[in-house]
Amino acid sequence: MGSTQSFGTASDEPTRLADIIAPMFGGQSGWSQRLQGGARAELLAGADAQDDCAVFGIDGPMEIVMGSDYVRGPKFQLYELGHLSNYDIGYYLAMANLSDIAAMGALPIALLTVVRYPRSLPDEDFTTLMEGIRDACRQVGAPNVGGDIGSAERIILSASAVGIVERGGSLLRTGARAGDRLCVTGPTGLAASAQRYFGGVGTGTGAKLTRAKEEALISAWRRPQALVRQGRCLSTSGVVTSCQDTSDGLKAGVQSLAAASGVGFVVEEGALPVDGVVAEVARLTDGDLTSVILGDSVDFQLVFTVAEDEASRLSKVFADAGLQFFDIGHATEEREVRLRRADGQEGDLPGNPWRHAT
Amino acid sequence: MGSTQSFGTASDEPTRLADIIAPMFGGQSGWSQRLQGGARAELLAGADAQDDCAVFGIDGPMEIVMGSDYVRGPKFQLYELGHLSNYDIGYYLAMANLSDIAAMGALPIALLTVVRYPRSLPDEDFTTLMEGIRDACRQVGAPNVGGDIGSAERIILSASAVGIVERGGSLLRTGARAGDRLCVTGPTGLAASAQRYFGGVGTGTGAKLTRAKEEALISAWRRPQALVRQGRCLSTSGVVTSCQDTSDGLKAGVQSLAAASGVGFVVEEGALPVDGVVAEVARLTDGDLTSVILGDSVDFQLVFTVAEDEASRLSKVFADAGLQFFDIGHATEEREVRLRRADGQEGDLPGNPWRHAT
Repeated sequence: MGSTQSFGTASDEPTRLADIIAPMFGGQSGWSQRLQGGARAELLAGADAQDDCAVFGIDGPMEIVMGSDYVRGPKFQLYELGHLSNYDIGYYLAMANLSDIAAMGALPIALLTVVRYPRSLPDEDFTTLMEGIRDACRQVGAPNVGGDIGSAERIILSASAVGIVERGGSLLRTGARAGDRLCVTGPTGLAASAQRYFGGVGTGTGAKLTRAKEEALISAWRRPQALVRQGRCLSTSGVVTSCQDTSDGLKAGVQSLAAASGVGFVVEEGALPVDGVVAEVARLTDGDLTSVILGDSVDFQLVFTVAEDEASRLSKVFADAGLQFFDIGHATEEREVRLRRADGQEGDLPGNPWRHAT
Repeated sequence: MGSTQSFGTASDEPTRLADIIAPMFGGQSGWSQRLQGGARAELLAGADAQDDCAVFGIDGPMEIVMGSDYVRGPKFQLYELGHLSNYDIGYYLAMANLSDIAAMGALPIALLTVVRYPRSLPDEDFTTLMEGIRDACRQVGAPNVGGDIGSAERIILSASAVGIVERGGSLLRTGARAGDRLCVTGPTGLAASAQRYFGGVGTGTGAKLTRAKEEALISAWRRPQALVRQGRCLSTSGVVTSCQDTSDGLKAGVQSLAAASGVGFVVEEGALPVDGVVAEVARLTDGDLTSVILGDSVDFQLVFTVAEDEASRLSKVFADAGLQFFDIGHATEEREVRLRRADGQEGDLPGNPWRHAT
């Protein structure tokens, strides 16, 4: 076929983002358009910002945020293995996209879904998948407003989400300053631990989790939650300086905030929140716990920075709302991301880096 | 795999839309959400409206429209055959999505793209594909604000587009009234003719188009145009009662306006705009010209209705903008869609119906 006869190199996704996408779509910010009456939309964060979502300022009291995620990729090994149903992957598709809206501090108003499937997929399976999408949308209070359905060789799932936030309220990745506290809304590593455990890494030992713990583990994939309430608290507090979700892993999230904000971070190993099941799976599979917590686990926690003297007030706002977060380190002038171990030694963050394209 | 062990029936896409999607997502209109300061977003047309896009009213002077289209499906036979490059399919992806915004009478402000590809795809092919997307966006003046890139077994292309329109200015499918004129912005059938011609239907005869005509024909796929200027004229005129694009074919478009508005239409065969190349391909391939013009050709014209006594004024607005449209019939009380032949005989509209899922 004419267009792919070339034999050039094929870079991975991070390289393409940096070398191809960023130059091609650079300089978008400031783009604006007006309607006939003069009403105006202005792009505040576009493709070159590489944030969870793009952000538009529009005339009136709000900003519009929007993002897209394709989810039916190699990460759905657990679907192939029979641990996830069609309902589950529909639910997951919706929540993965809604999480990007949450990470901007916005309120989701719409999910658009692309659901393609083999012609042989029975109506009841299609229905179940759509019910998963619908129920995830209900969970966060936003409607699934349409999209595209139709046939393909296999199930293809992609979506876009749109949200609104008060003018000036979008949580970007760029605002962290040296001295800020680094925080995360909850334990990470569950999604990766489920892949290790159910994917067979630990089954050779014979040791197994209890049924209840297996359920807790798989729920990271079956019922992921977009942390919309937390994101809204972060945005409306007015004291959060940067934020993103941990869908590429906690390490990738921290590194991304560092790069976008032009700071470094010291992460305190002893302060990382640990889920008991994650610790148990690490033991069963001879894994390094801190690597699992920091590595490329597709959890949907929010990692963010807050001005040092505002952290305790934010903590109270969260507590009043029945929510919590964990203070895991601080931002530094020096542009390096380091882990401080319990013994005081400092080193690079362990854990697999983001590897979408591997 | 547990979830697809069932042996139920598998309906086609139109059936699933009617029997599964519509009931599941019914009653969305009127949904609303408020931000802390009271700013509000309200869903005016959701999944149950089955329009080109969903529409939100928001506080301030505008409405937001949004839609998603997956394009890398069986229709890309011409890509497999080497008639379309990676640049072309990138361009197509963008324009197919932007056409939905045009059909709502809105101004596109953003395209979100999902581009997944085999790991072996060379950087230069990836770059070319993204350049096609970028250039199509430039053509209509809207930025590609991001989305999702990464690997998959084969090229998967999906996108979402977002637009803004003056409050009350969205062009829905629901407003046609008996007596309204039925109009279309230009000739249809080019995309289907290109598939017939280059797909081999006519090659057995030995007769061929000139090179210039071949170019004109394939451009329906290589450089489709989202008719944003036309859509804006239709919206700001204030006299258009319903509208959609012809991406499912002209027949499907007319039938859809009829069903949504609760009217019928008489289409005048003699008034249908005919592209010379379409007529020539129909002759070469022994096809019925009217069936090709009305059938499931993925053109991106706009089909719309306008109040009878305003049609001439709208015609002048278009002419002043250097644009045109064709009056092809009128809406009737009787809820049937009929073709009136040159000899006065009336019958059903010929042409393949919409067949996305076949």
